[in-house]
Amino acid sequence: MKKIGVFTSGGDAPGMNACVRSVVRSCLSLDIEPYGIWRGYNGMIAGDIRKMVSHDVSNIVQRGGTILKSARSEEFLTKEGRQKAYDNLMEHEIDGLIAIGGDGTFTGANLFGDEFEMPIVGAPGTIDNDLYGSDITIGFDTAVNTALDAIDKIRDTANSHDRVFFIEVMGRNSGYIAIQSGIGGGAEMVMVPETSTTMDDVIQTLKKGRDSQKTSSIIVVAEGDEQGNAHEIAGRVREHNPDLDIRVSTLGHIQRGGSPSAFDRVLASRLGLAAVEGLLNGEKNVMVGVIDNKITYTNLKLAISKSKPLNQELIRLVDILSI
Amino acid sequence: MKKIGVFTSGGDAPGMNACVRSVVRSCLSLDIEPYGIWRGYNGMIAGDIRKMVSHDVSNIVQRGGTILKSARSEEFLTKEGRQKAYDNLMEHEIDGLIAIGGDGTFTGANLFGDEFEMPIVGAPGTIDNDLYGSDITIGFDTAVNTALDAIDKIRDTANSHDRVFFIEVMGRNSGYIAIQSGIGGGAEMVMVPETSTTMDDVIQTLKKGRDSQKTSSIIVVAEGDEQGNAHEIAGRVREHNPDLDIRVSTLGHIQRGGSPSAFDRVLASRLGLAAVEGLLNGEKNVMVGVIDNKITYTNLKLAISKSKPLNQELIRLVDILSI
Amino acid sequence: MKKIGVFTSGGDAPGMNACVRSVVRSCLSLDIEPYGIWRGYNGMIAGDIRKMVSHDVSNIVQRGGTILKSARSEEFLTKEGRQKAYDNLMEHEIDGLIAIGGDGTFTGANLFGDEFEMPIVGAPGTIDNDLYGSDITIGFDTAVNTALDAIDKIRDTANSHDRVFFIEVMGRNSGYIAIQSGIGGGAEMVMVPETSTTMDDVIQTLKKGRDSQKTSSIIVVAEGDEQGNAHEIAGRVREHNPDLDIRVSTLGHIQRGGSPSAFDRVLASRLGLAAVEGLLNGEKNVMVGVIDNKITYTNLKLAISKSKPLNQELIRLVDILSI
Amino acid sequence: MKKIGVFTSGGDAPGMNACVRSVVRSCLSLDIEPYGIWRGYNGMIAGDIRKMVSHDVSNIVQRGGTILKSARSEEFLTKEGRQKAYDNLMEHEIDGLIAIGGDGTFTGANLFGDEFEMPIVGAPGTIDNDLYGSDITIGFDTAVNTALDAIDKIRDTANSHDRVFFIEVMGRNSGYIAIQSGIGGGAEMVMVPETSTTMDDVIQTLKKGRDSQKTSSIIVVAEGDEQGNAHEIAGRVREHNPDLDIRVSTLGHIQRGGSPSAFDRVLASRLGLAAVEGLLNGEKNVMVGVIDNKITYTNLKLAISKSKPLNQELIRLVDILSI
Repeated sequence: MKKIGVFTSGGDAPGMNACVRSVVRSCLSLDIEPYGIWRGYNGMIAGDIRKMVSHDVSNIVQRGGTILKSARSEEFLTKEGRQKAYDNLMEHEIDGLIAIGGDGTFTGANLFGDEFEMPIVGAPGTIDNDLYGSDITIGFDTAVNTALDAIDKIRDTANSHDRVFFIEVMGRNSGYIAIQSGIGGGAEMVMVPETSTTMDDVIQTLKKGRDSQKTSSIIVVAEGDEQGNAHEIAGRVREHNPDLDIRVSTLGHIQRGGSPSAFDRVLASRLGLAAVEGLLNGEKNVMVGVIDNKITYTNLKLAISKSKPLNQELIRLVDILSI
Repeated sequence: MKKIGVFTSGGDAPGMNACVRSVVRSCLSLDIEPYGIWRGYNGMIAGDIRKMVSHDVSNIVQRGGTILKSARSEEFLTKEGRQKAYDNLMEHEIDGLIAIGGDGTFTGANLFGDEFEMPIVGAPGTIDNDLYGSDITIGFDTAVNTALDAIDKIRDTANSHDRVFFIEVMGRNSGYIAIQSGIGGGAEMVMVPETSTTMDDVIQTLKKGRDSQKTSSIIVVAEGDEQGNAHEIAGRVREHNPDLDIRVSTLGHIQRGGSPSAFDRVLASRLGLAAVEGLLNGEKNVMVGVIDNKITYTNLKLAISKSKPLNQELIRLVDILSI
Repeated sequence: MKKIGVFTSGGDAPGMNACVRSVVRSCLSLDIEPYGIWRGYNGMIAGDIRKMVSHDVSNIVQRGGTILKSARSEEFLTKEGRQKAYDNLMEHEIDGLIAIGGDGTFTGANLFGDEFEMPIVGAPGTIDNDLYGSDITIGFDTAVNTALDAIDKIRDTANSHDRVFFIEVMGRNSGYIAIQSGIGGGAEMVMVPETSTTMDDVIQTLKKGRDSQKTSSIIVVAEGDEQGNAHEIAGRVREHNPDLDIRVSTLGHIQRGGSPSAFDRVLASRLGLAAVEGLLNGEKNVMVGVIDNKITYTNLKLAISKSKPLNQELIRLVDILSI
Repeated sequence: MKKIGVFTSGGDAPGMNACVRSVVRSCLSLDIEPYGIWRGYNGMIAGDIRKMVSHDVSNIVQRGGTILKSARSEEFLTKEGRQKAYDNLMEHEIDGLIAIGGDGTFTGANLFGDEFEMPIVGAPGTIDNDLYGSDITIGFDTAVNTALDAIDKIRDTANSHDRVFFIEVMGRNSGYIAIQSGIGGGAEMVMVPETSTTMDDVIQTLKKGRDSQKTSSIIVVAEGDEQGNAHEIAGRVREHNPDLDIRVSTLGHIQRGGSPSAFDRVLASRLGLAAVEGLLNGEKNVMVGVIDNKITYTNLKLAISKSKPLNQELIRLVDILSI
């Protein structure tokens, strides 16, 4: 293997730049030529591919977003699109790919790897932490800290006014951000897609809080909770408790940005090197991850099809800590 | 004057605690007994009034929210409510009041001061910075920094995806937070209640950005803009430009919380001392403020009735900087 | 077991409060009475022991330091001191102890556990991450992020002036903070007690950087490095390279403080519960920890005597990433 | 005037990039061609001068340091050096200069302006806030917030251990950072070059704190205090009070870096525009500043020779608030 292409795709996550930097420098230190592919699969199809040098990734380890830009590609879903992409890679004599992204990115990578002779290693970059094959994904720790910082700020004002706050965090199919920011933020309750919570549970929790003289309450809601979004849930609680001063805050896109945390920078750096070494060692169509602190490679098909269960210990913790 | 009562009221603002601390310690150093009144006018009516010592305000200068809690009071709008409040103050022999809050707080204080022999000095605590009589209010600087931090994070993801973002910040009647966070955040446009912006202006700005190869754009919208909220404005832009990838983020309540900035802590400390000294010097029914770096006292009636114009220089700056 | 005492001891670490809160609330939810012991072993000897209720630990999960205060105790090193401590615990009918701290704390706990019939579970709270028996300790993640934030700031000024910076971080016997903040901060080199680095290595690294047109360099030094502290090392480099603009920054005590990171709050919450459950399940004179994501209990004697090796993969990463 | 050159010089300060951006874009919007000069006077002498376009200053408003780099120049102190610089400017047909920096920068600019027909406007960029002619300088607000954040962290650990901390902040000739971060950080005492404090004052303050049951104390020391640096002062206190647990922290270079605060970004943006407009309006050899919220131009000779007194009101506040 002589030339490796790297790209970012799907929703961006803090730490993607640290991972790109690690891929580029790991290549250079192992005598491989690194190529950047801009705007994910779109750039592969359009031929937006350039050789990278060490200096291209200087001073980016601390930056959110991705210097390679990211996009979702309709065209890559077609056979013709993928053929164009392959032809462009061939033109640059690229003989291995590293895809940094999440579920959608790896679904594309898996298709591509089945059709063409092009080894691909995926690196899990998604704030949702919902990928099987890695205990934790690049961007998750930063997103949790951003959510937590917001919850800390909201608690200030909740306490000052004796209010109930419903705070919606990201996580369409997964409650990871919700559960960790909820525990860290001292939330009275956390509502996640993985467990079913009834409206009655919510109302009981708020009642319990008032009975024990708590003057304010915070309930963290993952955006994918089966009870609806935070506004809908708050609306129903308001009907039952018209006397409560209830507010809603949807944290939104701030969770995707920001300078990556130490954890994310180190994780991204480790996975970038491991992705390069994986390709050199003959790995193909796998996702690199960290399981029990060890670097592992999981088949892409598994990574995109199996779901990663939420830690039951954490769900129990929320209940215990809000006593 | 021997005993001064202090309370916080209305929406909380970062730095209120620093101001309470300054009032308490200024009283103590000038041989006045400070009394805390909890939950604003409600606590005055309920008699939730306690003598404070130095230690009560230890280790709060850095905390958001208000240890005295805040609330809006319906009862204080009635003559009976105010009479009860006055009787409670008399019972504690309080002979001067310091009210930390905004517009609504001072409207109540003004009424009370007209009816009873009780000198009141207001200290401007509101993130909106919309009070006549002070160039800047306690909490504004922190709120702008919080908004700016969010804009910085969103720019990361906007740049990575070539997106247009509408970011809604607080400011029902005032564009101060919007204009300062917009300039600081490098926004392409800022929409504020004080100036009229047409939908055509918005569309032209986005077109200009694309013509000059800008790949992403940020438009900051004050919640009180005459064109509607950020979701409404974005919706109309989407109709004209269905090809743009447009997103909306409403920053919401995080802007009220957080550890106060250095500026807010120093300002709150100065105004707390000046409020106490004002009372001792015979000021009554005024708001203490800072104008051109000097401590000033403005009649409460003026403070609540006159509006503070937005700095035209800043509006011009937004245009120039987004070239 | 009916009454559990909890205390913090040794150097404080961010997340200790989150752990105290978890111990107290876990006790309450399991029908155990929690007792706080103030100022570590000193408070045990002085009888500064009080029953705690849920509200005592409200609103502390986000605070640095420790509400139970911490201290080092000379008297506890004597047999008489420990006897007094035991008598005080007996008086309160405490039948189990949870000690939150590091090496010194557990050395005391181990002695005490050997002499008296008093089961003790330690929870690892130290920013140094140097305890055998847990992959990671409470406070470490926050300290690394604090160090990293400082390195990011210093890189701004290093780049602007083409300077070489030696940045000293904490870690008397351990390079954990140095290695992680060095990787995260994009340092050209990391000097830790666990590996021997010669002055020649340092000079070669700086030469290599200049040869490849790097205009600024950052070298992170653990305070316990065998080459001396950052000032001493910088002094010797200056002798060899009088033309370099070399600066030194010792981060110092800021690394112990600050609001704990999400990771530390969740870890501290998990370990607090696990410590209580350990006592209830008959564990004695052990340290609770997390190894490969699982809760584990390690004999205190082992925890204080065995050393935890630095991850070799990380040392290699520094070299690769600074190419 | 058709071409304006801009450079940064001396110690860097957060917000310099925002000012460079504002100069470049203000030029472009007023049909002037902006030229960047790299590495201050050194680049002027070496001819490191390039025309700038809008995109060159994209995405830098939030970055610390300076993209134009900064340096101190020995050669510019010679007549020959300045002649070379002038010749290079002539070659690029530059007919006006904007110098962003502090005292040393303006001393050079003043010399240059006396010798050559080249109008210069200085913009005050220095964290020390020690320039006559502007109430506040670019970078000061960020530096104070950085110092304050460090003090907040150290207070956590000071409180946990009942310690006395001497914290040294920047300010060789000026106590601005010390006084503002001291008030904001709730310091018991602030030692600045502008006022004389005896060792006896220090010892009395610490005694007073202990008498009123304060368990920890923080004393902020400006690096230029006449009693010496923080280590020296702490050493003398230790001799008098061997029983106190005294620690020292020197904040150092972190105070120069970091993403600029909202205040600094807005100030830098305003001054950048005002500098360009000043040149267009015929101002020469002046420093632009903000006095009582209004843009002003002060003769460079005055700016570098007159000293700006510390606000006495703030010195009094420290005493009152530490009661």
